[in-house]
Amino acid sequence: MTQKSLEICFTPAAFDAHADSEAIVVVVDVLRATSSICAAFANGVREIIPVATVEEAREMKAEGRLIAAERDGFVLDFADFGNSPFNFSADKIRGKSVIYSTTNGTGIMKKAAGSHDVVIGSYLNMSALCRWIEEQDRKVIIVCAGWKRRFSLEDAVCAGAMAQRLLDGGRFTTICDSVHAATDLWMAARQDLTGYIEKAAQRSRLRDKGLDDCIPYCHTFDVTDVIPVLREEKLVAL
Amino acid sequence: MTQKSLEICFTPAAFDAHADSEAIVVVVDVLRATSSICAAFANGVREIIPVATVEEAREMKAEGRLIAAERDGFVLDFADFGNSPFNFSADKIRGKSVIYSTTNGTGIMKKAAGSHDVVIGSYLNMSALCRWIEEQDRKVIIVCAGWKRRFSLEDAVCAGAMAQRLLDGGRFTTICDSVHAATDLWMAARQDLTGYIEKAAQRSRLRDKGLDDCIPYCHTFDVTDVIPVLREEKLVAL
Repeated sequence: MTQKSLEICFTPAAFDAHADSEAIVVVVDVLRATSSICAAFANGVREIIPVATVEEAREMKAEGRLIAAERDGFVLDFADFGNSPFNFSADKIRGKSVIYSTTNGTGIMKKAAGSHDVVIGSYLNMSALCRWIEEQDRKVIIVCAGWKRRFSLEDAVCAGAMAQRLLDGGRFTTICDSVHAATDLWMAARQDLTGYIEKAAQRSRLRDKGLDDCIPYCHTFDVTDVIPVLREEKLVAL
Repeated sequence: MTQKSLEICFTPAAFDAHADSEAIVVVVDVLRATSSICAAFANGVREIIPVATVEEAREMKAEGRLIAAERDGFVLDFADFGNSPFNFSADKIRGKSVIYSTTNGTGIMKKAAGSHDVVIGSYLNMSALCRWIEEQDRKVIIVCAGWKRRFSLEDAVCAGAMAQRLLDGGRFTTICDSVHAATDLWMAARQDLTGYIEKAAQRSRLRDKGLDDCIPYCHTFDVTDVIPVLREEKLVAL
């Protein structure tokens, strides 16, 4: 196999500059959407349907669906639960279909839907995801969900960890500056990952709202082997 | 004085998420637009008029103006010279008005024109620029020109050097993740700046085109005290 190209896109705002219908897109939103999605599949959810807008989520609630929806960390009033990975416990979601809308994570999934595959990445499923990616023999673009079109440190560091793993495996090469930057940030962060993330704005936002109990869990490697993938506008386990 | 806010925007694609009419915007395009602009003012240019499109530059050539214009590193056929800082020598430009259009650097100047001030930053004028910024008592947004809406390593490192200087001065504070990332990249790069930049995509592009003679110069601190500023769609020396 020839080496395939690896890119990182630090913000959905720049996705158009990276978009490639032949590529696999890995969406990363460590705090908390893609961590929560991985947790949900680890706990047996049947499918997750990402919707970008609050209005869509509200309409689907009216149809009697189970809704996970938040904006800026707060559970929307009509939703069944919010965006903590601890919300997606087996007793609530096993075998069920969940509608899901978050501030940053779900919008980019819709935007990337024209790619060859869209998969969900986090620390929680990193090893399984990297093994699967290495078998695909395709260009990969890791897209950081960021925060309202801005760069997010915790997503960049996670993307860097994933990129370093893929580059070390020897099947990927890169001429993408974001990959060089992200792997260097990962090198700076990896000795004390949650300590490094203390300076991230999203870390502070979650603390201010009392929602930071999930930080260590969201930075735990390999809790699950599940790989959520987008199929006909629904996330299902590969 | 209360501490003012410092932000970095890694790509013009995300500028809307940072834009603030009360802020000073510093545009950074190390290889090569903002380095060349600083060199031009150091060599006595009277004014530089940034134009975003090739068409505008071509029209102004027809009016008999002096034109600096490149795309992807190549001098446009109708232009008088390209985008190397060595093109802007005193014998060619002293006392003159120059029309200027480049792949990445000039577009963001137009986009940022609604800010309180738009100034040009590079290693070449860093100390003078930081001293001036510290006197203004205003929020600052450092905008990296990047490459075709993508992240550029050399711009991020320069922005990090500038941010570190401003934070060390004590008059600025930040809750911007890009600032934390850029200052960490600067810390990783600073011992061997041009060595670190070897992995940047723009470094390779310039090498491939034989345009890399300017790399050490573009990474030299404090060649000039000039601060180019945008005034009524023209860059002039402060």
